[in-house]
Amino acid sequence: MAKNIPIVENILNANDHLAQENRARIESAGVFSINIMASPGAGKTSLIEQTLPRLKDKLRIATVDGDIATSIDSDRAAAAGALASVQINTGGDCHLDAVMLRGALDQLTLSQYDLLIVENVGNLVCPASFKLGTHKSVLIASIPEGDDKPYKYPGMYRGVDVLIINKIDLLPYVNFRMDYFERGVEALNPGITTFPLSCRTGEGMDAWVDWLIQNVQPT
Amino acid sequence: MAKNIPIVENILNANDHLAQENRARIESAGVFSINIMASPGAGKTSLIEQTLPRLKDKLRIATVDGDIATSIDSDRAAAAGALASVQINTGGDCHLDAVMLRGALDQLTLSQYDLLIVENVGNLVCPASFKLGTHKSVLIASIPEGDDKPYKYPGMYRGVDVLIINKIDLLPYVNFRMDYFERGVEALNPGITTFPLSCRTGEGMDAWVDWLIQNVQPT
Repeated sequence: MAKNIPIVENILNANDHLAQENRARIESAGVFSINIMASPGAGKTSLIEQTLPRLKDKLRIATVDGDIATSIDSDRAAAAGALASVQINTGGDCHLDAVMLRGALDQLTLSQYDLLIVENVGNLVCPASFKLGTHKSVLIASIPEGDDKPYKYPGMYRGVDVLIINKIDLLPYVNFRMDYFERGVEALNPGITTFPLSCRTGEGMDAWVDWLIQNVQPT
Repeated sequence: MAKNIPIVENILNANDHLAQENRARIESAGVFSINIMASPGAGKTSLIEQTLPRLKDKLRIATVDGDIATSIDSDRAAAAGALASVQINTGGDCHLDAVMLRGALDQLTLSQYDLLIVENVGNLVCPASFKLGTHKSVLIASIPEGDDKPYKYPGMYRGVDVLIINKIDLLPYVNFRMDYFERGVEALNPGITTFPLSCRTGEGMDAWVDWLIQNVQPT
Protein backbone atom coordinates (compact mmCIF):
# COMPACT_ATOMS: atom_id res chain seq x y z
CA MET A 1 0.00 0.00 0.00
CA ALA A 2 2.78 2.42 -0.88
CA LYS A 3 1.38 5.90 -1.22
CA ASN A 4 3.63 6.59 -4.16
CA ILE A 5 5.34 9.70 -2.88
CA PRO A 6 7.23 10.35 -6.15
CA ILE A 7 3.94 10.86 -8.01
CA VAL A 8 2.69 13.22 -5.34
CA GLU A 9 5.92 15.19 -5.71
CA ASN A 10 5.48 15.36 -9.45
CA ILE A 11 1.96 16.69 -8.99
CA LEU A 12 3.22 19.36 -6.62
CA ASN A 13 6.00 20.37 -9.00
CA ALA A 14 3.57 20.60 -11.88
CA ASN A 15 1.26 22.59 -9.63
CA ASP A 16 4.02 25.07 -8.76
CA HIS A 17 4.76 25.57 -12.42
CA LEU A 18 1.11 26.29 -13.19
CA ALA A 19 0.92 28.59 -10.18
CA GLN A 20 3.76 30.66 -11.64
CA GLU A 21 1.85 30.91 -14.92
CA ASN A 22 -1.27 32.02 -13.05
CA ARG A 23 0.75 34.67 -11.20
CA ALA A 24 2.23 36.05 -14.42
CA ARG A 25 -1.24 36.23 -15.95
CA ILE A 26 -2.72 37.99 -12.91
CA GLU A 27 0.17 40.45 -12.70
CA SER A 28 0.13 41.33 -16.37
CA ALA A 29 -3.53 42.29 -15.95
CA GLY A 30 -2.61 44.63 -13.08
CA VAL A 31 -4.67 42.70 -10.54
CA PHE A 32 -3.82 42.13 -6.85
CA SER A 33 -4.90 38.69 -5.68
CA ILE A 34 -5.36 36.86 -2.39
CA ASN A 35 -6.02 33.23 -1.47
CA ILE A 36 -8.21 32.89 1.62
CA MET A 37 -7.88 29.66 3.56
CA ALA A 38 -9.47 28.41 6.80
CA SER A 39 -11.31 25.55 8.49
CA PRO A 40 -14.92 24.94 7.52
CA GLY A 41 -17.02 27.64 9.10
CA ALA A 42 -14.21 29.95 10.23
CA GLY A 43 -15.73 32.73 8.14
CA LYS A 44 -14.22 32.82 4.65
CA THR A 45 -17.47 33.65 2.91
CA SER A 46 -18.58 35.95 5.72
CA LEU A 47 -15.31 37.87 5.42
CA ILE A 48 -15.91 38.31 1.69
CA GLU A 49 -19.50 39.38 2.37
CA GLN A 50 -18.32 42.01 4.83
CA THR A 51 -15.35 43.16 2.74
CA LEU A 52 -17.05 43.68 -0.62
CA PRO A 53 -19.61 46.33 0.38
CA ARG A 54 -16.79 48.36 1.97
CA LEU A 55 -14.75 48.27 -1.26
CA LYS A 56 -17.10 48.02 -4.15
CA ASP A 57 -17.22 51.78 -4.80
CA LYS A 58 -13.42 51.96 -4.74
CA LEU A 59 -12.30 48.73 -6.43
CA ARG A 60 -13.51 46.38 -9.12
CA ILE A 61 -13.57 42.94 -7.51
CA ALA A 62 -13.87 39.40 -8.80
CA THR A 63 -14.11 36.29 -6.64
CA VAL A 64 -13.36 32.63 -7.20
CA ASP A 65 -15.03 30.35 -4.68
CA GLY A 66 -13.96 26.77 -4.17
CA ASP A 67 -16.17 24.18 -2.55
CA ILE A 68 -16.76 20.45 -2.61
CA ALA A 69 -20.35 21.10 -3.62
CA THR A 70 -22.95 23.86 -4.09
CA SER A 71 -22.70 27.42 -5.37
CA ILE A 72 -23.71 28.95 -2.03
CA ASP A 73 -20.45 30.88 -1.72
CA SER A 74 -20.31 32.45 -5.16
CA ASP A 75 -23.98 33.38 -4.83
CA ARG A 76 -23.19 35.16 -1.54
CA ALA A 77 -20.15 36.90 -3.08
CA ALA A 78 -22.18 38.10 -6.04
CA ALA A 79 -24.92 39.37 -3.74
CA ALA A 80 -22.30 41.24 -1.70
CA GLY A 81 -21.03 43.16 -4.72
CA ALA A 82 -18.52 41.08 -6.66
CA LEU A 83 -18.61 42.12 -10.33
CA ALA A 84 -17.88 38.54 -11.26
CA SER A 85 -17.98 35.37 -9.23
CA VAL A 86 -16.74 32.01 -10.43
CA GLN A 87 -17.63 28.87 -8.47
CA ILE A 88 -15.29 25.90 -8.59
CA ASN A 89 -16.86 22.67 -7.38
CA THR A 90 -13.96 20.37 -6.69
CA GLY A 91 -16.21 17.31 -6.70
CA GLY A 92 -14.54 15.83 -3.66
CA ASP A 93 -11.07 17.35 -3.76
CA CYS A 94 -10.19 18.91 -0.45
CA HIS A 95 -8.30 21.93 -1.80
CA LEU A 96 -7.96 24.17 -4.81
CA ASP A 97 -4.93 23.73 -7.02
CA ALA A 98 -3.35 25.85 -9.72
CA VAL A 99 -5.06 24.09 -12.61
CA MET A 100 -8.47 24.71 -11.03
CA LEU A 101 -7.64 28.40 -10.64
CA ARG A 102 -6.45 28.52 -14.25
CA GLY A 103 -9.83 27.18 -15.32
CA ALA A 104 -11.53 29.91 -13.32
CA LEU A 105 -9.25 32.64 -14.73
CA ASP A 106 -10.28 31.48 -18.22
CA GLN A 107 -13.79 32.63 -17.36
CA LEU A 108 -12.74 36.13 -16.28
CA THR A 109 -11.50 39.11 -18.29
CA LEU A 110 -8.86 39.86 -15.69
CA SER A 111 -8.03 43.38 -16.87
CA GLN A 112 -11.54 44.46 -15.84
CA TYR A 113 -10.72 44.00 -12.14
CA ASP A 114 -8.43 45.47 -9.49
CA LEU A 115 -8.73 42.75 -6.89
CA LEU A 116 -9.19 38.99 -7.19
CA ILE A 117 -10.29 37.15 -4.06
CA VAL A 118 -9.94 33.38 -4.12
CA GLU A 119 -11.80 31.45 -1.44
CA ASN A 120 -10.27 28.04 -0.92
CA VAL A 121 -12.03 24.86 0.28
CA GLY A 122 -12.61 24.75 4.05
CA ASN A 123 -9.63 22.75 5.28
CA LEU A 124 -6.70 23.49 7.61
CA VAL A 125 -4.40 20.91 6.08
CA CYS A 126 -4.34 20.27 2.37
CA PRO A 127 -4.63 23.77 0.82
CA ALA A 128 -1.28 24.68 2.42
CA SER A 129 0.47 22.34 -0.02
CA PHE A 130 -0.96 23.75 -3.23
CA LYS A 131 0.15 27.18 -4.43
CA LEU A 132 -2.34 28.88 -6.69
CA GLY A 133 -0.29 31.83 -7.94
CA THR A 134 -2.00 34.53 -5.89
CA HIS A 135 0.06 37.36 -4.37
CA LYS A 136 -0.82 36.81 -0.72
CA SER A 137 -2.18 33.91 1.33
CA VAL A 138 -4.64 34.83 4.05
CA LEU A 139 -5.52 32.43 6.87
CA ILE A 140 -8.65 32.97 8.95
CA ALA A 141 -8.51 31.62 12.49
CA SER A 142 -11.76 31.58 14.43
CA ILE A 143 -12.09 32.11 18.17
CA PRO A 144 -14.51 29.18 18.79
CA GLU A 145 -12.09 26.80 17.01
CA GLY A 146 -9.83 27.06 20.03
CA ASP A 147 -6.43 28.45 20.88
CA ASP A 148 -4.40 25.34 20.03
CA LYS A 149 -4.79 25.44 16.26
CA PRO A 150 -1.32 26.86 15.43
CA TYR A 151 0.23 23.97 17.33
CA LYS A 152 -1.92 21.35 15.64
CA TYR A 153 -1.88 22.71 12.07
CA PRO A 154 1.64 24.16 11.78
CA GLY A 155 1.86 23.76 8.00
CA MET A 156 -0.97 26.16 7.43
CA TYR A 157 0.12 28.71 10.01
CA ARG A 158 3.70 28.63 8.76
CA GLY A 159 2.93 29.24 5.11
CA VAL A 160 0.63 32.26 5.06
CA ASP A 161 1.23 36.01 4.77
CA VAL A 162 -1.72 37.40 6.71
CA LEU A 163 -3.67 36.08 9.69
CA ILE A 164 -7.23 37.14 10.42
CA ILE A 165 -8.60 36.25 13.85
CA ASN A 166 -12.36 36.15 13.30
CA LYS A 167 -15.33 35.96 15.70
CA ILE A 168 -13.67 38.05 18.42
CA ASP A 169 -17.23 38.89 19.55
CA LEU A 170 -17.41 35.32 20.90
CA LEU A 171 -14.38 35.74 23.21
CA PRO A 172 -16.56 36.23 26.31
CA TYR A 173 -18.38 32.95 25.69
CA VAL A 174 -15.54 30.49 25.02
CA ASN A 175 -12.25 29.48 26.60
CA PHE A 176 -9.60 31.05 24.37
CA ARG A 177 -6.21 32.05 25.75
CA MET A 178 -5.06 34.72 23.32
CA ASP A 179 -1.50 34.74 24.67
CA TYR A 180 -1.18 30.96 24.13
CA PHE A 181 -2.56 31.28 20.61
CA GLU A 182 -0.24 34.19 19.78
CA ARG A 183 2.82 32.38 21.10
CA GLY A 184 2.04 29.49 18.78
CA VAL A 185 1.62 31.81 15.80
CA GLU A 186 4.79 33.74 16.60
CA ALA A 187 6.87 30.55 16.78
CA LEU A 188 5.73 29.48 13.31
CA ASN A 189 5.38 32.80 11.52
CA PRO A 190 7.17 35.62 13.38
CA GLY A 191 5.81 39.09 12.80
CA ILE A 192 2.92 37.99 10.58
CA THR A 193 0.43 40.76 9.76
CA THR A 194 -2.62 40.06 11.92
CA PHE A 195 -6.16 41.46 11.94
CA PRO A 196 -8.44 40.55 14.86
CA LEU A 197 -12.02 41.23 13.79
CA SER A 198 -15.63 40.14 13.83
CA CYS A 199 -17.48 39.63 10.55
CA ARG A 200 -20.69 39.61 12.59
CA THR A 201 -20.31 42.96 14.37
CA GLY A 202 -17.93 44.63 11.92
CA GLU A 203 -15.38 45.37 14.65
CA GLY A 204 -11.85 45.46 13.23
CA MET A 205 -12.95 45.35 9.58
CA ASP A 206 -11.51 48.78 8.73
CA ALA A 207 -7.88 47.82 9.31
CA TRP A 208 -8.27 44.75 7.08
CA VAL A 209 -9.99 46.73 4.32
CA ASP A 210 -7.27 49.41 4.49
CA TRP A 211 -4.62 46.73 4.09
CA LEU A 212 -6.33 45.48 0.93
CA ILE A 213 -6.59 48.99 -0.53
CA GLN A 214 -2.93 49.68 0.16
CA ASN A 215 -1.93 46.48 -1.59
CA VAL A 216 -4.10 47.11 -4.63
CA GLN A 217 -2.85 50.68 -4.99
CA PRO A 218 0.66 50.74 -3.53
CA THR A 219 1.65 54.21 -2.34
CA MET B 1 -0.66 16.51 -14.48
CA ALA B 2 -2.96 13.49 -14.34
CA LYS B 3 -3.94 12.77 -10.78
CA ASN B 4 -3.75 9.06 -11.44
CA ILE B 5 -7.18 8.06 -10.19
CA PRO B 6 -6.51 4.31 -10.60
CA ILE B 7 -3.72 4.48 -7.98
CA VAL B 8 -6.00 6.35 -5.59
CA GLU B 9 -8.60 3.62 -6.03
CA ASN B 10 -6.01 0.96 -5.30
CA ILE B 11 -5.06 2.76 -2.09
CA LEU B 12 -8.69 2.92 -1.03
CA ASN B 13 -9.24 -0.76 -1.78
CA ALA B 14 -6.17 -1.68 0.22
CA ASN B 15 -7.39 0.57 3.00
CA ASP B 16 -10.81 -1.12 3.07
CA HIS B 17 -9.14 -4.50 3.33
CA LEU B 18 -7.04 -3.36 6.29
CA ALA B 19 -10.09 -1.76 7.88
CA GLN B 20 -11.84 -5.15 7.80
CA GLU B 21 -8.83 -6.69 9.52
CA ASN B 22 -8.91 -3.97 12.18
CA ARG B 23 -12.61 -4.58 12.74
CA ALA B 24 -12.10 -8.33 13.18
CA ARG B 25 -9.33 -7.68 15.68
CA ILE B 26 -11.41 -5.17 17.67
CA GLU B 27 -14.45 -7.45 17.70
CA SER B 28 -12.56 -10.54 18.75
CA ALA B 29 -11.35 -8.56 21.77
CA GLY B 30 -14.95 -7.68 22.67
CA VAL B 31 -14.40 -3.96 22.26
CA PHE B 32 -16.90 -1.40 20.92
CA SER B 33 -15.19 1.28 18.86
CA ILE B 34 -16.06 4.69 17.41
CA ASN B 35 -14.31 7.02 14.97
CA ILE B 36 -14.90 10.69 15.81
CA MET B 37 -14.57 13.13 12.90
CA ALA B 38 -15.08 16.90 12.65
CA SER B 39 -13.61 20.18 11.45
CA PRO B 40 -10.67 21.60 13.36
CA GLY B 41 -11.98 22.99 16.63
CA ALA B 42 -15.49 21.54 16.49
CA GLY B 43 -14.83 19.79 19.80
CA LYS B 44 -13.49 16.27 19.25
CA THR B 45 -11.04 16.41 22.14
CA SER B 46 -13.47 18.35 24.32
CA LEU B 47 -16.11 15.67 23.75
CA ILE B 48 -13.64 13.00 24.84
CA GLU B 49 -12.67 15.10 27.88
CA GLN B 50 -16.32 15.41 28.89
CA THR B 51 -17.24 11.81 28.08
CA LEU B 52 -14.46 9.98 29.90
CA PRO B 53 -15.13 11.22 33.46
CA ARG B 54 -18.78 10.19 33.05
CA LEU B 55 -17.79 6.64 32.01
CA LYS B 56 -14.52 5.78 33.63
CA ASP B 57 -16.08 4.04 36.63
CA LYS B 58 -18.30 1.97 34.33
CA LEU B 59 -16.08 1.20 31.33
CA ARG B 60 -12.43 0.61 30.57
CA ILE B 61 -11.57 3.08 27.82
CA ALA B 62 -8.65 3.51 25.43
CA THR B 63 -8.23 6.38 22.97
CA VAL B 64 -6.31 6.81 19.76
CA ASP B 65 -5.75 10.46 18.82
CA GLY B 66 -4.72 11.51 15.35
CA ASP B 67 -3.13 14.85 14.61
CA ILE B 68 -0.77 16.41 12.13
CA ALA B 69 1.52 17.36 15.01
CA THR B 70 1.75 17.45 18.84
CA SER B 71 0.49 15.08 21.53
CA ILE B 72 -1.92 17.66 23.01
CA ASP B 73 -4.95 15.46 22.37
CA SER B 74 -3.69 12.20 23.83
CA ASP B 75 -2.38 14.11 26.86
CA ARG B 76 -5.86 15.57 27.38
CA ALA B 77 -7.50 12.15 26.94
CA ALA B 78 -5.16 10.56 29.47
CA ALA B 79 -5.80 13.36 31.93
CA ALA B 80 -9.56 12.84 31.50
CA GLY B 81 -9.37 9.19 32.46
CA ALA B 82 -8.39 7.07 29.46
CA LEU B 83 -6.57 3.97 30.69
CA ALA B 84 -4.42 4.10 27.57
CA SER B 85 -3.95 6.82 24.99
CA VAL B 86 -2.05 6.41 21.75
CA GLN B 87 -1.11 9.48 19.73
CA ILE B 88 -0.72 9.15 15.98
CA ASN B 89 1.12 12.05 14.38
CA THR B 90 0.34 11.81 10.69
CA GLY B 91 3.23 14.08 9.77
CA GLY B 92 1.18 16.04 7.28
CA ASP B 93 -1.49 13.55 6.26
CA CYS B 94 -4.93 15.07 6.55
CA HIS B 95 -6.74 11.96 7.80
CA LEU B 96 -6.21 8.68 9.61
CA ASP B 97 -6.25 5.51 7.56
CA ALA B 98 -6.55 1.86 8.45
CA VAL B 99 -2.82 1.20 8.47
CA MET B 100 -2.28 4.02 10.96
CA LEU B 101 -4.97 2.58 13.21
CA ARG B 102 -3.40 -0.87 12.91
CA GLY B 103 -0.14 0.62 14.15
CA ALA B 104 -1.95 2.14 17.11
CA LEU B 105 -3.77 -1.14 17.89
CA ASP B 106 -0.37 -2.84 18.02
CA GLN B 107 0.40 -0.69 21.04
CA LEU B 108 -2.75 -1.67 22.94
CA THR B 109 -3.76 -4.93 24.65
CA LEU B 110 -7.26 -4.63 23.28
CA SER B 111 -8.87 -7.21 25.57
CA GLN B 112 -8.18 -4.91 28.53
CA TYR B 113 -10.74 -2.35 27.27
CA ASP B 114 -14.49 -2.10 26.67
CA LEU B 115 -14.52 1.03 24.52
CA LEU B 116 -12.03 2.34 21.97
CA ILE B 117 -12.44 5.98 20.96
CA VAL B 118 -10.55 7.07 17.84
CA GLU B 119 -10.20 10.81 17.29
CA ASN B 120 -9.52 11.58 13.64
CA VAL B 121 -7.60 14.54 12.20
CA GLY B 122 -9.61 17.78 12.11
CA ASN B 123 -10.98 17.80 8.57
CA LEU B 124 -14.47 17.73 7.02
CA VAL B 125 -13.36 16.22 3.72
CA CYS B 126 -10.69 13.57 3.59
CA PRO B 127 -11.44 11.34 6.62
CA ALA B 128 -14.78 10.42 5.02
CA SER B 129 -12.93 8.41 2.35
CA PHE B 130 -10.86 6.25 4.67
CA LYS B 131 -12.56 3.56 6.72
CA LEU B 132 -10.68 2.56 9.83
CA GLY B 133 -12.60 -0.52 10.90
CA THR B 134 -14.42 1.01 13.86
CA HIS B 135 -18.05 0.08 14.55
CA LYS B 136 -19.58 3.53 14.33
CA SER B 137 -18.59 6.85 12.76
CA VAL B 138 -19.47 9.94 14.76
CA LEU B 139 -19.48 13.40 13.21
CA ILE B 140 -19.36 16.51 15.39
CA ALA B 141 -20.96 19.61 13.90
CA SER B 142 -20.39 22.86 15.75
CA ILE B 143 -22.87 25.71 16.00
CA PRO B 144 -20.36 28.51 15.23
CA GLU B 145 -19.27 26.68 12.04
CA GLY B 146 -22.56 27.69 10.50
CA ASP B 147 -25.74 26.01 9.32
CA ASP B 148 -24.62 25.34 5.72
CA LYS B 149 -22.07 22.63 6.43
CA PRO B 150 -24.23 19.63 5.40
CA TYR B 151 -24.73 21.27 2.01
CA LYS B 152 -21.05 22.03 1.54
CA TYR B 153 -19.55 18.81 2.90
CA PRO B 154 -22.08 16.17 1.81
CA GLY B 155 -19.59 13.30 1.74
CA MET B 156 -18.95 13.58 5.44
CA TYR B 157 -22.57 14.06 6.44
CA ARG B 158 -23.70 11.18 4.23
CA GLY B 159 -21.27 8.61 5.56
CA VAL B 160 -21.62 8.77 9.33
CA ASP B 161 -23.78 6.88 11.86
CA VAL B 162 -24.15 9.49 14.59
CA LEU B 163 -24.26 13.29 14.53
CA ILE B 164 -23.33 15.39 17.53
CA ILE B 165 -24.27 19.07 17.38
CA ASN B 166 -21.82 20.73 19.75
CA LYS B 167 -21.61 24.23 21.26
CA ILE B 168 -25.37 24.68 21.51
CA ASP B 169 -24.59 27.17 24.31
CA LEU B 170 -23.43 29.55 21.55
CA LEU B 171 -26.79 29.52 19.73
CA PRO B 172 -27.83 32.91 21.18
CA TYR B 173 -24.65 34.58 19.88
CA VAL B 174 -24.46 33.39 16.27
CA ASN B 175 -26.73 33.17 13.24
CA PHE B 176 -27.62 29.50 12.99
CA ARG B 177 -30.91 28.36 11.46
CA MET B 178 -31.43 24.94 13.02
CA ASP B 179 -34.26 24.04 10.62
CA TYR B 180 -32.05 24.79 7.58
CA PHE B 181 -29.23 22.72 9.05
CA GLU B 182 -31.54 19.81 9.89
CA ARG B 183 -33.10 19.80 6.41
CA GLY B 184 -29.61 19.46 4.93
CA VAL B 185 -28.76 16.59 7.27
CA GLU B 186 -32.07 14.82 6.64
CA ALA B 187 -31.59 14.93 2.87
CA LEU B 188 -28.19 13.26 3.13
CA ASN B 189 -28.64 10.92 6.06
CA PRO B 190 -32.32 10.40 6.90
CA GLY B 191 -33.07 9.49 10.49
CA ILE B 192 -29.48 9.73 11.71
CA THR B 193 -29.08 9.48 15.48
CA THR B 194 -28.41 13.04 16.68
CA PHE B 195 -27.23 14.47 20.00
CA PRO B 196 -27.34 18.25 20.47
CA LEU B 197 -25.06 19.13 23.39
CA SER B 198 -22.52 21.50 24.84
CA CYS B 199 -19.15 20.17 25.95
CA ARG B 200 -18.66 23.48 27.77
CA THR B 201 -21.81 23.45 29.92
CA GLY B 202 -22.46 19.70 29.94
CA GLU B 203 -26.01 20.16 28.60
CA GLY B 204 -27.10 17.14 26.57
CA MET B 205 -24.11 14.98 27.54
CA ASP B 206 -26.21 12.35 29.34
CA ALA B 207 -28.06 11.16 26.23
CA TRP B 208 -24.77 10.74 24.35
CA VAL B 209 -23.13 8.87 27.24
CA ASP B 210 -26.18 6.60 27.56
CA TRP B 211 -25.94 5.78 23.85
CA LEU B 212 -22.30 4.74 24.31
CA ILE B 213 -23.12 2.54 27.31
CA GLN B 214 -25.95 0.85 25.43
CA ASN B 215 -23.65 0.07 22.51
CA VAL B 216 -20.86 -1.28 24.67
CA GLN B 217 -23.24 -3.51 26.63
CA PRO B 218 -26.14 -4.34 24.30
CA THR B 219 -29.30 -5.22 26.20
